[in-house]
Amino acid sequence: MSLKIRSRIWIELEDQVFLGEGRVQVLKAIDEMGSLSKAAKSLNMSYKKAWRLVDSVNASAKRPVIISSIGGKEGGGTQLTPYGKSLVHLFDEINQGCWDYLDTQLDKIEQL
Amino acid sequence: MSLKIRSRIWIELEDQVFLGEGRVQVLKAIDEMGSLSKAAKSLNMSYKKAWRLVDSVNASAKRPVIISSIGGKEGGGTQLTPYGKSLVHLFDEINQGCWDYLDTQLDKIEQL
Repeated sequence: MSLKIRSRIWIELEDQVFLGEGRVQVLKAIDEMGSLSKAAKSLNMSYKKAWRLVDSVNASAKRPVIISSIGGKEGGGTQLTPYGKSLVHLFDEINQGCWDYLDTQLDKIEQL
Repeated sequence: MSLKIRSRIWIELEDQVFLGEGRVQVLKAIDEMGSLSKAAKSLNMSYKKAWRLVDSVNASAKRPVIISSIGGKEGGGTQLTPYGKSLVHLFDEINQGCWDYLDTQLDKIEQL
């Protein structure tokens, strides 16, 4: 019998979603691809939706989470700021801590 | 600034949802009202939907989570079995443990 306790976490600021799995996924894809349009494409998401998700994080964050550059040989791009990277990293860490806690609870269900 | 980490948990058996917030809510309402139709009404849920949720828990649980009686002075009703009550109680306990863990992580976000 395969028993699992699963979870989803999200961070709220003033009762509005600030960071959740979807936004983190877009930020990670930007970090990997160096571009918002490539990030959106890699997630099968419209550019507009990806932009809206990132913009809403940026709008409530203490500091910007991405920086964009325009022009240059590579035609510009979008990158995570160090603050953006820390935020993504911390989200993953808290998520993992939550999963670890839930794994310790499995026995209790099996023993019922 | 009001910062919160929120979560939702659910239990899966063989990769199928076995117990989540919605099912627990129906089970709690049955426990309170002593009847599936009253429980559904109190949650603004159709009888059919409430029945399907409870039936799917019952179908995968080791033991029945509800018992129904038919007839009698009170016209029968539906009750949680002791196993059903333990399951609901344990779900709430694990959920609370998860929230407690997440609360300990808030500082880390504030300190970024």
